[in-house]
Amino acid sequence: MPSQTLEYPKQPYTSYSLETIHHIINTSPVLHVSFNAPDSPFPTILPMIGQMGSYSRPSADTGDVLDLYLHGYVSSQIMNLARGNWGKDGDGAESNEEPGLPLSVAATHVDGLVLSLTPNSHSYNYRSAVVFGRAVPVTDAAEKLWAMELITNGVVHDRWRHTRVPPTPAEMQSTAVLRVAVAAGSAKIRTGMPGGESRADAGDPALAARVWTGVVPLHLVAEEPLPGPGNGVAQVPAYLRDYMADFNNHAKKTALEAATTPMKPNPSAK
Amino acid sequence: MPSQTLEYPKQPYTSYSLETIHHIINTSPVLHVSFNAPDSPFPTILPMIGQMGSYSRPSADTGDVLDLYLHGYVSSQIMNLARGNWGKDGDGAESNEEPGLPLSVAATHVDGLVLSLTPNSHSYNYRSAVVFGRAVPVTDAAEKLWAMELITNGVVHDRWRHTRVPPTPAEMQSTAVLRVAVAAGSAKIRTGMPGGESRADAGDPALAARVWTGVVPLHLVAEEPLPGPGNGVAQVPAYLRDYMADFNNHAKKTALEAATTPMKPNPSAK
Repeated sequence: MPSQTLEYPKQPYTSYSLETIHHIINTSPVLHVSFNAPDSPFPTILPMIGQMGSYSRPSADTGDVLDLYLHGYVSSQIMNLARGNWGKDGDGAESNEEPGLPLSVAATHVDGLVLSLTPNSHSYNYRSAVVFGRAVPVTDAAEKLWAMELITNGVVHDRWRHTRVPPTPAEMQSTAVLRVAVAAGSAKIRTGMPGGESRADAGDPALAARVWTGVVPLHLVAEEPLPGPGNGVAQVPAYLRDYMADFNNHAKKTALEAATTPMKPNPSAK
Repeated sequence: MPSQTLEYPKQPYTSYSLETIHHIINTSPVLHVSFNAPDSPFPTILPMIGQMGSYSRPSADTGDVLDLYLHGYVSSQIMNLARGNWGKDGDGAESNEEPGLPLSVAATHVDGLVLSLTPNSHSYNYRSAVVFGRAVPVTDAAEKLWAMELITNGVVHDRWRHTRVPPTPAEMQSTAVLRVAVAAGSAKIRTGMPGGESRADAGDPALAARVWTGVVPLHLVAEEPLPGPGNGVAQVPAYLRDYMADFNNHAKKTALEAATTPMKPNPSAK
């Protein structure tokens, strides 16, 4: 599968690759988080909600080095493990290691089905990011509140201040937030039309006349909002309408552009 | 987050929960696969393509016990590890354990944004499945060919026979397929309108008049296919049109039904 790989850089950081990795994560409604739990031969994998951000430097943009904030429930296994600083062996006794639960987080957007002459050269247009890091529970109340707002507004832009905030003390206590210090990361991106067929296949006119080849663009779409039984707001508010319009326009544009944009040379090699 | 959990059962198997888990996996364009690589404190996590199926009993339906087949490249790390039977410790020497690389596979569909009165009671409508198992490379040529067809048709129904098949010996060699014997699994599903607000919030008319609450349905959509530069088929073929129409109808219907269907009592408790 032809693809472009971007590494979460060591030093010096290249803004382009960080921006790409962070954008893929921040626009993914769900992240898949993997970690090792004690006494299981299998890694655990969970869907979670999260956003990249910097509490110590809130004005940082997506091209800067950021932490990943993950939302969870205070009693969940991942929160208990992160509190206990379990390592890969699950013995909870790795005092000589860096603090935090080692975990991996993946976000993948599928932008299209790439249908070529042979099954082997079929592919997806996609954008996938993975970050690796150590997660610790956020204990500072101000940082936790900041992260909850970041994550809520990551789901729907500007939603936080249009709800009943601030959370009550009981709400603050029942919610846990993990901060992941990112140690490494990378992105893989595939765009464009089919390719990679053998010369024999690509030069076979009978085959070209028989097998449809091209791209089926694929993207998420937000449908007209459906008010709940307790809703007392007559019109869908402007911030929600605007967010949905942006979301839908961006999703469609991304999928169509992915289909028609040939793979670029790896920009991190510049 | 109110949700319904279905376990991949031990014995006896309940058809309902297996069907649900398998359907979530088979309709997910991408699966996230997690495993432990030697010498890394972090589990690895990868997007992969896969389908549930039974080679020994091809007529098995999605309510039966199935294996998971994953497509990959012959030289990729996961394939090398699966050949080597590495365990959690990555020492490759666990001869007393069952064969295969322990891995976890997750598939998540987001069906809607659930917007409630408070950030803490926000949620998603979603369907998420996780299976745990041990992966071994498929070495039997007939099983591998069968799995490649299964996986290709999982991306676009009936695509396989409309391409140049069978694969050449070189194509067969460059493709690897993993068979995962599923040891355990579960699904989590959330449907319906917002809920879970406190009595004080739910009974506050000023709050109801200020905060829009309800569901924004969310689903994937396939756009009009874009022919590639080498395409020689004038019309988009019927099997592809049909597949796209089914895909789009099913995706929209699922998201809208998720919004309006209250959570059912857990059927596995029956």
